[in-house]
Amino acid sequence: MPLTRRRWMTATGAAAAALAAPRAAGGASAPPPSPLPPPLPADAFRERQARLRAAARTAGLAALFATPSTNLTYATNLSIGRSERLTALLLFTDGPAVLVTPFFEEENHRRDVVADDVVTWKEDEDPMPVVARLLGSGPVGIEGSTAYDTVARLSAAASVGPRDASDVFEGLRRVKSPQEQAFIREAARRTILAIEATHRSLAAGKTEGEIARALEAAFQAQGVSGGGLVQFGPSAAYPHGGPGERRLAKGDVVLIDAGCKVRGYTSDVTRTVAFGPPSDDVRRVYAAVDRGQRAGIDALRAGATGAEVDRAARQVIAEAGWGDAFTHRLGQGLGLDGHESPYLVRGNATPLAAGNTVTVEPGIYLPGKFGVRIEDDYAVRDAAPAAGLSVRPAELVVLRA
Amino acid sequence: MPLTRRRWMTATGAAAAALAAPRAAGGASAPPPSPLPPPLPADAFRERQARLRAAARTAGLAALFATPSTNLTYATNLSIGRSERLTALLLFTDGPAVLVTPFFEEENHRRDVVADDVVTWKEDEDPMPVVARLLGSGPVGIEGSTAYDTVARLSAAASVGPRDASDVFEGLRRVKSPQEQAFIREAARRTILAIEATHRSLAAGKTEGEIARALEAAFQAQGVSGGGLVQFGPSAAYPHGGPGERRLAKGDVVLIDAGCKVRGYTSDVTRTVAFGPPSDDVRRVYAAVDRGQRAGIDALRAGATGAEVDRAARQVIAEAGWGDAFTHRLGQGLGLDGHESPYLVRGNATPLAAGNTVTVEPGIYLPGKFGVRIEDDYAVRDAAPAAGLSVRPAELVVLRA
Repeated sequence: MPLTRRRWMTATGAAAAALAAPRAAGGASAPPPSPLPPPLPADAFRERQARLRAAARTAGLAALFATPSTNLTYATNLSIGRSERLTALLLFTDGPAVLVTPFFEEENHRRDVVADDVVTWKEDEDPMPVVARLLGSGPVGIEGSTAYDTVARLSAAASVGPRDASDVFEGLRRVKSPQEQAFIREAARRTILAIEATHRSLAAGKTEGEIARALEAAFQAQGVSGGGLVQFGPSAAYPHGGPGERRLAKGDVVLIDAGCKVRGYTSDVTRTVAFGPPSDDVRRVYAAVDRGQRAGIDALRAGATGAEVDRAARQVIAEAGWGDAFTHRLGQGLGLDGHESPYLVRGNATPLAAGNTVTVEPGIYLPGKFGVRIEDDYAVRDAAPAAGLSVRPAELVVLRA
Repeated sequence: MPLTRRRWMTATGAAAAALAAPRAAGGASAPPPSPLPPPLPADAFRERQARLRAAARTAGLAALFATPSTNLTYATNLSIGRSERLTALLLFTDGPAVLVTPFFEEENHRRDVVADDVVTWKEDEDPMPVVARLLGSGPVGIEGSTAYDTVARLSAAASVGPRDASDVFEGLRRVKSPQEQAFIREAARRTILAIEATHRSLAAGKTEGEIARALEAAFQAQGVSGGGLVQFGPSAAYPHGGPGERRLAKGDVVLIDAGCKVRGYTSDVTRTVAFGPPSDDVRRVYAAVDRGQRAGIDALRAGATGAEVDRAARQVIAEAGWGDAFTHRLGQGLGLDGHESPYLVRGNATPLAAGNTVTVEPGIYLPGKFGVRIEDDYAVRDAAPAAGLSVRPAELVVLRA
């Protein structure tokens, strides 16, 4: 049917709280699910729409156009997967917020969407003329992730010029409200619980894939949809995950990079632990990553640039002799997306602002040997210290092997 | 870290065969996993690249540009999630296939990608000038799902004009090779096994969410990543899934719409069964949907238009008195995407061709009462009958309640 896997993931994600019944994580005893914080009220979305209108006006736009994306979710509370059937928000700078959606989706979408009007199109109808008629003339700001062929079809149907409205959305989304920060904090709390439960399911001979499934189950047991990368020993030297077939051996590092969503807001936490007594190399590398992370966190405050915060951590790791082995940026913003602005990366001269939420995640990767990454989530404040959204580990954890 | 949930899903999807260990589906006894068919050889991707070049040349393009998407997978075998870090194929009409990718992803991507060259960019570098330099001048065909802001940044950096290349990819992808059809057939076979295993786990009082998880587990037990919608009784009247909290009661219909991927190729199968003796209404509606599906299948052959096939099924259902309750199109193409061209829908005047693979999935939805959909997958041949990729049910299945 009318079903894509992506759509289904979105649907089960959204409904996870309702669906979740406790079930045993593979071998781990996960704590029972606690209730999720209440969702944002409809007024929060109306306020966002007012702020989007103001930003669009400043940018000289007559309307914003957004298809399913985290920006659509941000603006309307509607969290659905994208499909070949057009669903789009038309947010008029001096007018209503209109959702255009397939006729047979209307009831489904009306349940969640915060909008002034819903306009439907029929299965055998081309929705683009419908959208064009509503838009009239005037420059239209296109949500940045919109598919290029959607814009091409819109341009052909409408008398309007498309403009990239990435900055309009990004500018607002970068600064998180206290409620948004609380969602990330709660997601991070559940992530750390899930990682700890997964640690209890480790045993020599188990594969990364088996443990990845135990991790998923540990999230599910908490009523949230989540998962992540599990890497043992030399696999952990790949910053984005290895092949997944390695079996755990005594002395391996175990790197788990995991996240989940609470009310749509993402956490992203990495823990590297030792399965059995670690080598001196592992201890030294861990200590360098740990010091690098602390240096990054200490540098994190409004007014500092992403480049400065990255440099603070990188310098510590370079001085320890592993500068070349820290192959990625220090961190990135997180919110409705797991990767969003602002980025803590060389070359980013934009000053951070209070309310930015970011990961701080230095790593050292030694190909053929092992890798260590420590990742925590922080909210930038006017002055240091930044507010920890996840509780960082005090020291290298050594598990009994 | 560098991890998005979507990326992780992609990764586990790709590695599912390797990772999968048999595990009991919630209450159901799923059969043990059988080996997957072998993947396509590298030469198959080189041949696709040659055909893409020819199509691009005909369209007057100097190169094609594709970021992570099923079209990138189709062209290069690289199946990764999209992120804010640019990975893109530049396929030159009269030149090489070049993958541009972040430095620290190179090793990961080289494992899978079929390309003539890999060019990397560093974490603190803007990749767009790199891409612009490679592209030179000349019209560039943009893969249709490319994010609008990527195209906007590319246009700003390059001296080239972007053009929508959706048709270039779509034209080739619509016609499936025998190997591609075999992948879909194998995915459909596993989907029907998963649905049947899930039926064995049904019990009064269970929620749709619990059964959806049993469905997932039944796929996992077969070494594939899959899932779907589970709807009981009145919930089944929503063609795209209801809220998921309903508990199963004797007399409910149980609608399961599920799919999985084999070597990247999708299946999409829906079964509606009765949990305990069905009402006469359910029997009559089921019979009408069944007849409608058969009429659609009979009409399916090269040369018929998508509109004609849709009409054949719709007419039967309308004559039975439920025309208004069949609220969506009859079906759509499936392949690397679960929804792709060609569409079996009113207004589609493009003739079908041998090798098109489509779903045939009529449904009748009676709000407040129940819904019935039957969905199977077919490959179009020069003459009817089309080749069944899934084995359609002979009659309404009534489960013991």
